[in-house]
Amino acid sequence: MINIAVLGHGVVGSGVVEVLEKNSQSIGQKAGEQINLKYILDLRDFPESPYRDKFVKDFEIIANDPEIKVVVEVMGGVSPAFEFASRCLSSGKSIVTSNKELVAAKGDVLLALAKENNANFLFEASVAGGIPIIRPISQCLAANEVFEISGILNGTTNFILAKMIKDGMEFSEALSLAQQLGYAEKNPAADIEGHDACRKICILASLAFGYHVYPDEVYTEGITKITLEDVRCAELFGGAIKLIASVKRNNDGTVFIVTAPMIVSFDSQLAHIDGVYNAVLVRGDAIGDVVFSGRGAGKLPTASAVVGDVIDSVKHLKARKYLYWDKSKTGYVRDINEDIASFYVRAKASDSTKAIAGIKEIFGEVQIVLEENGEIVFKTSVNTVGETYENLKKLEQNGCEILSRIRFFDIGAEQ
Amino acid sequence: MINIAVLGHGVVGSGVVEVLEKNSQSIGQKAGEQINLKYILDLRDFPESPYRDKFVKDFEIIANDPEIKVVVEVMGGVSPAFEFASRCLSSGKSIVTSNKELVAAKGDVLLALAKENNANFLFEASVAGGIPIIRPISQCLAANEVFEISGILNGTTNFILAKMIKDGMEFSEALSLAQQLGYAEKNPAADIEGHDACRKICILASLAFGYHVYPDEVYTEGITKITLEDVRCAELFGGAIKLIASVKRNNDGTVFIVTAPMIVSFDSQLAHIDGVYNAVLVRGDAIGDVVFSGRGAGKLPTASAVVGDVIDSVKHLKARKYLYWDKSKTGYVRDINEDIASFYVRAKASDSTKAIAGIKEIFGEVQIVLEENGEIVFKTSVNTVGETYENLKKLEQNGCEILSRIRFFDIGAEQ
Repeated sequence: MINIAVLGHGVVGSGVVEVLEKNSQSIGQKAGEQINLKYILDLRDFPESPYRDKFVKDFEIIANDPEIKVVVEVMGGVSPAFEFASRCLSSGKSIVTSNKELVAAKGDVLLALAKENNANFLFEASVAGGIPIIRPISQCLAANEVFEISGILNGTTNFILAKMIKDGMEFSEALSLAQQLGYAEKNPAADIEGHDACRKICILASLAFGYHVYPDEVYTEGITKITLEDVRCAELFGGAIKLIASVKRNNDGTVFIVTAPMIVSFDSQLAHIDGVYNAVLVRGDAIGDVVFSGRGAGKLPTASAVVGDVIDSVKHLKARKYLYWDKSKTGYVRDINEDIASFYVRAKASDSTKAIAGIKEIFGEVQIVLEENGEIVFKTSVNTVGETYENLKKLEQNGCEILSRIRFFDIGAEQ
Repeated sequence: MINIAVLGHGVVGSGVVEVLEKNSQSIGQKAGEQINLKYILDLRDFPESPYRDKFVKDFEIIANDPEIKVVVEVMGGVSPAFEFASRCLSSGKSIVTSNKELVAAKGDVLLALAKENNANFLFEASVAGGIPIIRPISQCLAANEVFEISGILNGTTNFILAKMIKDGMEFSEALSLAQQLGYAEKNPAADIEGHDACRKICILASLAFGYHVYPDEVYTEGITKITLEDVRCAELFGGAIKLIASVKRNNDGTVFIVTAPMIVSFDSQLAHIDGVYNAVLVRGDAIGDVVFSGRGAGKLPTASAVVGDVIDSVKHLKARKYLYWDKSKTGYVRDINEDIASFYVRAKASDSTKAIAGIKEIFGEVQIVLEENGEIVFKTSVNTVGETYENLKKLEQNGCEILSRIRFFDIGAEQ
């Protein structure tokens, strides 16, 4: 019998307890050992809980109990999760976490600690909730050179965008609905500003390409400025606006990494991922494009991913799972302005004819798809992001107001 | 250093050799041991091959060489692949195969042999080529009750159907194009009659629900009778025709399993899987719907899945991977006529008014969506498959000619 502890009894934590209890017999069979939940750490009281005897408020009880072999960290936030996880790993206890903030901020340190102490640090649930993705990527990586990972990694923003696209809701209205349904928090900044998706692509980038990438190294743009006009224009270009988080490895070993709304062609599977679903596209040399999709969040999907890792860490108590990346290095994440892309631009001008002449002068060959009510919609040709931004500035100096500019997502469309 | 042998030097076999050589350094790192390709078994001569020194024609050389720890079987067919694999497993050599015919026909026997001899029998490449699916399903199963697996498991038929749907090609024309492009064989029966997809769903069913299912226990219908009229009618119902292979577990532990063209709602991701792509939908209690998609066939995707398994079997030479199912049992696969479904029906009658009256009398409430040129298109309400077939017979006796009847695919549409 293996004793485990769960740190935190919020949504995910109580889900983990529920899944462990409900499927305890089959989980025991799969792990090869019965799994016993010995402690639940939470500062609150749960007098009605059937597990009330297991609650403790002092982390030291867990840290100092040699019987505890695996600790599930589902508290969220970097502190004290980091200190608790470090203490556990240092004494050879394996850690399973769903905490993307922790992994994105401290993954390299915790993986190194796990390695030193022959323990596991597993975090399948930190990216894309219940979709198995960390392990399939490790597997894709085994016999492939993976050179790009892109995905829809935040269900809340995907729900909001889908409501705008399919039901013609305004952003604010869709956000309110998401909050009513419990998909968005009262303070939705982490989701709608792209920070949550950014943390997850940092984790996938670190895993796939071997060096830790910190969220503050990533150009991140949210969806708060997307309007229904943008949604309609994206359709004119044969695509849908999605919040895409993407990392690409360059031939020199550096990476471009970005989180931003992008226009995704209807030819790409990612354009058809709706509602609170997530999807991750992995592109490798031998394998081509592989897409994994499913519910990216929610109590039970996330809990099931956590429990899957618990089973795995129990099976690998002696033989550590190989999961590792190095510390970050200078110059590894390249300036996103050096990346190349093409953009959709919506501009407003009092004199359309003059404005179009200006656009052609500044951007060279462009595809103008709409011109009405003083608004001009066009697609820039492929150029560096930096130069495109410079050109947009010139256009403003020329008397045009730039209402929107959204990058085209260029992969996954090869079907 | 671990020595391996590859049985067969056809498309997949030569791809395996290519991937092993191209990525040998990183593969060695991931496996924790250098992997040395010692023998390639093929009856043909390859005097120009850079690996010509490794070719042998006599399987006994491989079987009797104690240095060989892992044998890759990529010959295809049940015999002699089964005899060779059995010999290897019996002497403790692990087997990695891409041969779905072998796994569907003899998986239970080979898994039992592997267990007895503490060897691995791995077959990730046998289903959906390069898409990691066997392992993710095992992982989904770990903390979930999975109750349904459905998918597009044959790229050739998906290519043909996509050409009919998107480009308005007739079936025969699309088949010729698939043959020209090398997606379909000269004798395309195994693909277009559904046998290939059927073998793959047998493997997934056996893996997910624990008992071996044989292909001849599965109701299997191909796509040869699908016409452009059917494609257009499917669109009227808001869906696309896909060749779906599906298994569902009933509450009493029995399963329904079927391979047939079905109308898939555009709300389902499976409707948007085009070209030679495959997709597998796994539905579980905690996880909800998860979809895995990618290229289902091709030299390099399949080879990369094989090499992934080789790496895994090298890492698990001592500690066997847990992958197992029991022999089949009587009454486990239920008669598909007892399954419930609703169907699209296209019927022809000289007297439409009389025919519609007959349809309503026989089927009760139905949704008639089209009535032109003596053809009537309707959707039956949900009923047992058997009773629906009986009703269709009655309709024929009533003077209607049944031109088509295609089942609606009912899952994956919950987004």
